[in-house]
Amino acid sequence: MNTKLTLEELRAFIAREFPQMADVYRVDAIAPMWARVSMMPDERHLRPGATVSGPVIFGLADCGMYFALLATIGPEALAVTTNGSIDFMRKPLPGRALIAEVTLLKVGRVLAVGDVAVRSEGADGMIARATLTYSIPPKK
Amino acid sequence: MNTKLTLEELRAFIAREFPQMADVYRVDAIAPMWARVSMMPDERHLRPGATVSGPVIFGLADCGMYFALLATIGPEALAVTTNGSIDFMRKPLPGRALIAEVTLLKVGRVLAVGDVAVRSEGADGMIARATLTYSIPPKK
Amino acid sequence: MNTKLTLEELRAFIAREFPQMADVYRVDAIAPMWARVSMMPDERHLRPGATVSGPVIFGLADCGMYFALLATIGPEALAVTTNGSIDFMRKPLPGRALIAEVTLLKVGRVLAVGDVAVRSEGADGMIARATLTYSIPPKK
Amino acid sequence: MNTKLTLEELRAFIAREFPQMADVYRVDAIAPMWARVSMMPDERHLRPGATVSGPVIFGLADCGMYFALLATIGPEALAVTTNGSIDFMRKPLPGRALIAEVTLLKVGRVLAVGDVAVRSEGADGMIARATLTYSIPPKK
Repeated sequence: MNTKLTLEELRAFIAREFPQMADVYRVDAIAPMWARVSMMPDERHLRPGATVSGPVIFGLADCGMYFALLATIGPEALAVTTNGSIDFMRKPLPGRALIAEVTLLKVGRVLAVGDVAVRSEGADGMIARATLTYSIPPKK
Repeated sequence: MNTKLTLEELRAFIAREFPQMADVYRVDAIAPMWARVSMMPDERHLRPGATVSGPVIFGLADCGMYFALLATIGPEALAVTTNGSIDFMRKPLPGRALIAEVTLLKVGRVLAVGDVAVRSEGADGMIARATLTYSIPPKK
Repeated sequence: MNTKLTLEELRAFIAREFPQMADVYRVDAIAPMWARVSMMPDERHLRPGATVSGPVIFGLADCGMYFALLATIGPEALAVTTNGSIDFMRKPLPGRALIAEVTLLKVGRVLAVGDVAVRSEGADGMIARATLTYSIPPKK
Repeated sequence: MNTKLTLEELRAFIAREFPQMADVYRVDAIAPMWARVSMMPDERHLRPGATVSGPVIFGLADCGMYFALLATIGPEALAVTTNGSIDFMRKPLPGRALIAEVTLLKVGRVLAVGDVAVRSEGADGMIARATLTYSIPPKK
């Protein structure tokens, strides 16, 4: 099993179709049913106390899931998030990139389910764990 | 039962402590265990096709929950999100404000749980439903 | 808008197709996009300390969602749970029936989402809140 | 880091304190922050079509999480489930045991979060993935 897109093709697709996302999120690596996506939080993403806000972490997880799905099923599909569930467990380390490791657990006919672990770069404990479900529209 | 803060006190607190949030989110009304919070999506919040992205809606729900909790338990507590679960059900109507109605279901000693319904202004069907859990730190 | 089945038809369908469920769960009332389902916990459902276990409450919520969906879309559809999220907030009152109020938030082409509030009979505070997603198989 | 209980101590504790659970669930193996728990579905757990029902799978996940927590923090703590989220992805294989692998992601002062993967014995694809949060009561 291969990914439908190479890493370079995926990055080019994101830069062309989602330029605002390409500014924030970086696809580090992909493999079948898997992706690693990272972001460097800047002042826009911080809450008082220099903490990255929960929705920013959710956004990284959601985006990582989307990129893993694009790589796996190809860019033609216009998948949308139908359900997300996230547990926030530790504070991000200040000044470090956030790394999301995405594992697709199921890519079915109409639904795809993925598991995302978010960590600070170089740290072991998870900042957050999310499960995301995307709905895959019917082929025309 | 009253809220610990009046609407004016809550707005002043948010403007002082979270100026970036005060730019985006508006507390429309509060009552014990309840709040209505809205935002007008702008180009920063849109995905291609002029759709508001899922993480933006999650951010509104999370923020609404936080404001409802501030109003109910007072501003001294530094509550943080521990868990969130969200279902995305309909697309927001273009050009309309997003309205989050927050109902606190439980405010316990260590955990608070709230339910958030997000709609487009003037529309009936929910865009999204979220449940959020906040951890309340021990009193010092 | 009407339900596709009357309360009597729904009860007869459940008794015929799911006799074990009919022994445990009772449909009290239905309306379009809504149902109230109850159960009387017995010794099979209790944990030490005479508490009803979490999975029993999840089972009531899941079953209530299924019955509300049956009433709304009719009995031919073989819907299955794809996602569930539940918050446990209070202990059930001993010796009281558990009442689940189900509100369908969306019944789409492939997914149905419902919200379930579980209370002890005669009590105000929620024991648990659940959101359930069912997948609706394609019509043949 | 060791578990607070050996496998034999954990099994003895469960048999003494939760005899109904000991009849259904078997702890196969434990390690720090980890446990594998299994059950053999019988006719009580089946829905028409010989499918194991969602709440039975949720019950296995919840119970597996509880046993992993008992092994890790010791039996004195009376932890209770506060939140659960589960995705059902594949049907169990008929006639096979269900295996739950539990990984504790965080054991904090007041909350413990765990991740549970449920598979049919001998099969690769996950039947379900759950995340469970337990509240740990304050030490007296």
